[in-house]
Formats: sequence, structure tokens, C-alpha cells
Amino acid sequence: MPDPAPQPDVIALLKARRSVRQFTAEPVPVPTLRLLLEAAMAAPSAAASDPWEFVVVTDAATLGTLRDGLLFARYVAPAAIVVCANLSVANNSAARTYWVQDCSAAMENLLIAATGLGLGAVWIGLYPHDAAQDTVRRALAIPAEVTPLGMAYVGYPAATPAPRTRYDAHRVYWEQYEPRKRRARKKDAKHQE
Amino acid sequence: MPDPAPQPDVIALLKARRSVRQFTAEPVPVPTLRLLLEAAMAAPSAAASDPWEFVVVTDAATLGTLRDGLLFARYVAPAAIVVCANLSVANNSAARTYWVQDCSAAMENLLIAATGLGLGAVWIGLYPHDAAQDTVRRALAIPAEVTPLGMAYVGYPAATPAPRTRYDAHRVYWEQYEPRKRRARKKDAKHQE
Repeated sequence: MPDPAPQPDVIALLKARRSVRQFTAEPVPVPTLRLLLEAAMAAPSAAASDPWEFVVVTDAATLGTLRDGLLFARYVAPAAIVVCANLSVANNSAARTYWVQDCSAAMENLLIAATGLGLGAVWIGLYPHDAAQDTVRRALAIPAEVTPLGMAYVGYPAATPAPRTRYDAHRVYWEQYEPRKRRARKKDAKHQE
Repeated sequence: MPDPAPQPDVIALLKARRSVRQFTAEPVPVPTLRLLLEAAMAAPSAAASDPWEFVVVTDAATLGTLRDGLLFARYVAPAAIVVCANLSVANNSAARTYWVQDCSAAMENLLIAATGLGLGAVWIGLYPHDAAQDTVRRALAIPAEVTPLGMAYVGYPAATPAPRTRYDAHRVYWEQYEPRKRRARKKDAKHQE
């Protein structure tokens, strides 16, 4: 099937959300950070349990501590937002089952909002890596019962990647699953998205 | 802090993404379903492992089987899209660690795309509930090694819920986490989002 045209705005927005790892020095205004948080907390959560908390970091020294401690996330950004799970503030017990999914949806909302606001962002996975979580816990005084799922570096992009989807018709089944022999491995997908 | 104004489009879009459980009988055109899949596969995944597969269901009998089997998801919709994880089609081993997060981001993209295209949708959690997954596996011939993470019912909304965020300043920490004594429990949040 050929690409539909014209491209609706929402699809263009979602394709424009790319991982950005290099940022200008321009700080992200607090009202803009607040919009990212509003977006994150507009995500669905199971039974509206809202199992999340957020730590916003703009302090240069703290960002340096995070950068130094995270082996695979040494990016220089003016801000970072850590998406945490905290079952003790969740609204109900659905959080116990679905907190990873809920916090992931919140993170994705945050990244999409960043794109739409002209920012760039990248999702740094923390959970379930103990060392990465410990680094973030120590830097931000996050207690043991709160789980940092992931962190988004946020800032104005030094360069804007081209929009794309990794749509692959081999990943789609219509009406019924049909096991196929081939593996839909893509040779050009070795690098971080 | 007062709400910033004006509301940027992306924030309005994300606030408009509400769970919709009642739909008109109008079918969702295949090109529109394809856009939802393009949106889903524009989500980030760890190391671009893309651990996902999708099963699109529009057949009324199959939708009926799903509805009859899912105790908490008995909604009548013209389409459903199941987001599955399949480590054997993933591009690399990052999928083993991050598939829940990656598939959740894909699901959230799908829901946001639905909103932007004038559709409504609701995320039905399947993983980690064995009974729900088994129901979906049987109805759609999904093999045991493929994990249905969740399912979105999709259609044109019978009614459009008001936009909202569940933004809560008590869930936000600036610069450092600071344990608080109060629990941010909300009495009005018992119902499914």
C-alpha cells in the first residue's frame, strides 16, 4: 500500500519525534518544563492509578553528576526529567501490575510534547538496570522505594533529525496472526533509535 | 504556577487523548488503520530493537470472540489492534530488557494518533494477566512465544470526552527528590482513566 497523502498533522508530529542527544546551551523555561509535565500526566494509566512522580533537574552540577555516572548517557543537556514509579502515591493497586507500562506512556507523552514545543529529547533507560538506577537515586536523593524508570534529557536541539517511522509491513498481521519463517531483522537498525 | 496560555497544539492533542469505550458503527478505513501502525512504529525503542508486532482485527466474529473472552473489556468497537512483543523478530538483544517499555510507547503513539485522526481508542491491558493473554492468543492464533502486551479498541467515538491532564504538583520535584509525609492519593480517581 502506498503512503497515504496528505500526511495528517498528528502523524507528522509522531514521525518528527526523534531521539535528540545534542542540544544548544539555551535553558528550557520553567513554564515549558511544566507543559512537559502536564503532557506526561495526561497519559493513560491502568485504573487511573497514576503511579508516577517526576524529578526535574536543571542544576548544572547535578546534571554533571548524572552525566558522569551514566555510562551510556553522557549527553550535555540543559534539563533532565526523571520519570519515577512510586506505588505508595498511586491511587490504587493497579499500579502494582502496570506501573512500567503507565510510566512508559507518561515518558512517551513527554517526548512527544517536547517535539511539538520545538525541543529535542532522548529517553534514557534506567529500570531494570540497578547501576543506572543507583546513580540517579544518589544524585537526586531518590529513596529506595521509588523506582526511576527512565530519564529524558531535554533541550533545544543542536540539529533536528529528519522525521521517520520504522513502519514495517512484516510486523503487521490482519485479522489473525500467521507465523512466518523469515525474521524481520533489519541490518541498518543496529544503532540507538 | 498558573496554567500557561495559549495552549500549544501538542499539549491540547495530548490532553484530548482520553479513553473512549463507546463507538459508532462506522468502520475504520484501512488507510487510517495503516496510519495508526505508522504512528506506533514511530515510537522509540531501546537501541531501535523494535520488539513489536501488531494484529489488526476488524472481523465482527473475531471481535465478538475477544469481547466475550475479556471480562473487563467488553466494548463494541469496529476495530482492535493488539500490540505484541516478539523477541525473535527484534533487531537486537535490547528487546529482552526493554520490550514492555518499548511496546508501551508504541501503544501510546497509536492512541495519540487515533485522537489526532478523530478516532477514539482505549488501551486494554493484557500482559501480565495470563487469562487475558490466553484469550487473545486463542482468538488470533498468536503463538506462545509472542506476548500480547495490550490491545486498543479503535473506532469513531460515540461521544468525545473533555480534554484533561491529571497534572498534580505533588508528583513533581525540582532538582532533588524530597520525601513528603502526605500521600498524593486522589479520592476521585478510582475509576478507569
